[in-house]
Amino acid sequence: MAQAQQGKGQAQQGGKGAKQESAITPTREQDYAEWYQQVIKAADLAENAPVRGCMVIKPWGYALWENVQKSLDKMFKDTGHQNAYFPLFIPLSFFEKEAEHVEGFAKECAVVTHHRLVPKEGGGLMPDPESKLEEPLIVRPTSETIIGAMFSKWTQSYRDLPILINQWANVVRWEMRTRLFLRTAEFLWQEGHTVHATAEDAREETMRMLDVYEKFAHDYMAMPVIKGAKCSWERFPGAVDTYAIEAMMQDRRALQAGTSHFLGQNFARSSDIKFQSKEGREEFAWTTSWGVSTRLIGGLIMTHSDDDGFILPPRLAPKHVVITPIYRNDEERTAVLESVKALAAELKTQPFGDGRVEVEIDDRDLPGGEKKWFHVKRGTPIRLEIGPRDLAANAVSMSRRDKGPKDRATVSRAEIVALIAPTLEDIQRGLFEKALAMRTANTREITDRKEFDAFFTPKNGDKPEIHGGFALCPFVDDKRIEETLKELKVTVRCIPLDQERKPGKCIFTGVETDRWAIFAKAY
Amino acid sequence: MAQAQQGKGQAQQGGKGAKQESAITPTREQDYAEWYQQVIKAADLAENAPVRGCMVIKPWGYALWENVQKSLDKMFKDTGHQNAYFPLFIPLSFFEKEAEHVEGFAKECAVVTHHRLVPKEGGGLMPDPESKLEEPLIVRPTSETIIGAMFSKWTQSYRDLPILINQWANVVRWEMRTRLFLRTAEFLWQEGHTVHATAEDAREETMRMLDVYEKFAHDYMAMPVIKGAKCSWERFPGAVDTYAIEAMMQDRRALQAGTSHFLGQNFARSSDIKFQSKEGREEFAWTTSWGVSTRLIGGLIMTHSDDDGFILPPRLAPKHVVITPIYRNDEERTAVLESVKALAAELKTQPFGDGRVEVEIDDRDLPGGEKKWFHVKRGTPIRLEIGPRDLAANAVSMSRRDKGPKDRATVSRAEIVALIAPTLEDIQRGLFEKALAMRTANTREITDRKEFDAFFTPKNGDKPEIHGGFALCPFVDDKRIEETLKELKVTVRCIPLDQERKPGKCIFTGVETDRWAIFAKAY
Repeated sequence: MAQAQQGKGQAQQGGKGAKQESAITPTREQDYAEWYQQVIKAADLAENAPVRGCMVIKPWGYALWENVQKSLDKMFKDTGHQNAYFPLFIPLSFFEKEAEHVEGFAKECAVVTHHRLVPKEGGGLMPDPESKLEEPLIVRPTSETIIGAMFSKWTQSYRDLPILINQWANVVRWEMRTRLFLRTAEFLWQEGHTVHATAEDAREETMRMLDVYEKFAHDYMAMPVIKGAKCSWERFPGAVDTYAIEAMMQDRRALQAGTSHFLGQNFARSSDIKFQSKEGREEFAWTTSWGVSTRLIGGLIMTHSDDDGFILPPRLAPKHVVITPIYRNDEERTAVLESVKALAAELKTQPFGDGRVEVEIDDRDLPGGEKKWFHVKRGTPIRLEIGPRDLAANAVSMSRRDKGPKDRATVSRAEIVALIAPTLEDIQRGLFEKALAMRTANTREITDRKEFDAFFTPKNGDKPEIHGGFALCPFVDDKRIEETLKELKVTVRCIPLDQERKPGKCIFTGVETDRWAIFAKAY
Repeated sequence: MAQAQQGKGQAQQGGKGAKQESAITPTREQDYAEWYQQVIKAADLAENAPVRGCMVIKPWGYALWENVQKSLDKMFKDTGHQNAYFPLFIPLSFFEKEAEHVEGFAKECAVVTHHRLVPKEGGGLMPDPESKLEEPLIVRPTSETIIGAMFSKWTQSYRDLPILINQWANVVRWEMRTRLFLRTAEFLWQEGHTVHATAEDAREETMRMLDVYEKFAHDYMAMPVIKGAKCSWERFPGAVDTYAIEAMMQDRRALQAGTSHFLGQNFARSSDIKFQSKEGREEFAWTTSWGVSTRLIGGLIMTHSDDDGFILPPRLAPKHVVITPIYRNDEERTAVLESVKALAAELKTQPFGDGRVEVEIDDRDLPGGEKKWFHVKRGTPIRLEIGPRDLAANAVSMSRRDKGPKDRATVSRAEIVALIAPTLEDIQRGLFEKALAMRTANTREITDRKEFDAFFTPKNGDKPEIHGGFALCPFVDDKRIEETLKELKVTVRCIPLDQERKPGKCIFTGVETDRWAIFAKAY
């Protein structure tokens, strides 16, 4: 409620000619980073917890995450995966087994060292020195090593393969600079872990899950992504190859939205995952892992929201339609509410996406304007209003969130029910197209170092985030260019899988190549 | 597969007159505790992790937990609750706020003290002394204190109440003696946390959720439970009143299957959860919490399984029906598989429970007997077989898991589809009735100390677990009897809500009372 009041007042009051302010302050142009925090606050999606770097995911944000889970989970199961659950804690010795892996995560681990508290001199409690663990436990930052230990037990023969497992879990990475959804010390995610008899099978799985992520991003999140391989210094610690989906946010920065790793035999060797082949030979297996996290919600917010708040793609919206009854007295209330409930019941029978239209009735005792802004900021795709005049005219007032806060059309009651699902589809498609157009407009082929530097130089000294976007440049995987890029605060996002392979020269080393990569500033 | 072989051989081979062994060794009578572990192993539900006290929940066990989640989650949402997510870590200072609460959990806490690893002299890694946290973090054993800190921010006015939140999460309690599902250091659960303006509202919520748990246990788990209040020394640390549902396992021990706590204003005071009342006064709010965990799966196993393995109540079974095609050559295979697939497709359209009939086709290249025992031990409610002779006779062979491994009936193909859902209902009802009859037969009103002692004395010195069951005795809440009970290894399970309140005398103190309690040995 606090939020409902906040956005409303300044927003659309004031007579003609008065400056029209937006519901979110600051706007994207004024301060993109702060705008992002304010959209989350106004939509009541999450807030910082009183635990360093951790967040509380509030009901509206969690309902969105539940929809992400439901949709992805079905895609995982449809591709033959089963869910399971592995321990939160990883013994230090397991964690140390894969050298690159531990090197990659050692600096950001939460370490459990004691299992009991005792009273402290002077009051309060402290870890009981006598409960010190012989071997410290790491709170999982990812589960390759602990799951690998189980896979080692489960894998005896080629008949046991493939093993196709997914886990929905919380993980912890002690990040120093955190930001809601995008980077938090604890986050929720899914991690797929699979074991295969051949490199080909494992590579096929790696690409299959990358495709699943792309499909999810496109069809559900309405967020266009580019599938590609990571360069050598951006790989997952311990992987042979890492693939990612990369999206462009509205400030033209890249967001890595999901990764799929071909782990080769690295973890099979360190975790001793061996099997007897058809030919009777003992061989190391081939493994993959792949994951997406609550970070997707950050991507969703930054892809679609505007200066009036969150815009939910219908396929993931916890509610598709909110109906607000308008009345001034009890008599009107009875008639209007009856009509609203009947409409809600009809709408709920309409198929949309993988289920049916989800409807909310907002009959709270609040001023109409306040309610409207509440739902604008939360991003509900369609708002309907019914008042006595609508009843008399057999009409409903309909507003689409994607068309901005002033959108309002009058639709006949006879047509509204059949109109909702196609309208939701139209919103979903429109959001994707708008985001794709934005990315296309801000992606440029660059073959010249000067142009590259200019592309990534902020156009306005005050707003370092406003720069060119994605640069597609000839690329040679040479770690020496990493330093140059660091100075420019630019990273290699990925080597797109779908590319022409035109000849060109690396703009840093001059070496000839026919592979191109996306360079961008990134989250 | 290892398990499939294990149970089969001994089980039903050997000619007539040979001793028929069971698929699970030992049987319940031989060694109940070991039987329990072996049922879990044979059904491939879970196994011990290589992390002290933790378990790995395997796909069949996790699919069962997903069904528990889905069913309960719907009941929570139908009663107005919303899901959210709170941090895994609780700062020590938060944890200390409620004196009884911290006292209750201090001895079993996993404590995070460092956030980085560094190389150790002589190789390996250790927690970086420079990364020592100023304030240790407790891995949540339950979340009253961290959620309370958020509730304190969210609760301003009576208009903000009630707050009705649920969280699905992992929690850690450093238990010394662990047992799969029943008691593990890490377990999965849901914890409801609510805030109310009045004691009446909070008490009503406490009882509402206890009723939800009872309904879930009865309708989904087919596990009869007794709802009751806990005595003073069995309460949740920090609660004013704790209510529980208690079930009787097949060894006549009690299992506490879910709890609902009326927390009064204890946590509101310690977490400063205040609101302005309608009358403008600042008041402390009233809170509740309630939870069930993966322990329910332990209860399910011990309620229904037999000496041939797990028996799944159909309402929670990941698969209701498994169809096994029988054939000797490719020609037969083609015809049989076609028929099996057609049947599966038809069955999947049949409504059952909250969804539809879930069907699995087992076409693995394994001997028929091995497959049969695989599914017997996993507990799938109905097994169907179709072979060339069945095809010719337009028939299907049907076996019900609840009727034992030898059950087999021939059903005409024309009738089988319509028969499945009613048969599943019949199995569900039968499992409940059998468990209820077992509990009734092993519950006795006892008003005499000698009879009480005899009731809890094992009938056979070798099998301490075989004793009387539930004793219903007059009860006075006097902490002095706790010691006596400890010696007898008996506990007060609950003071049933549904009772006659007949006059009687406490068999330990002689004090007159009209309240009766259930006494039992317990998990």
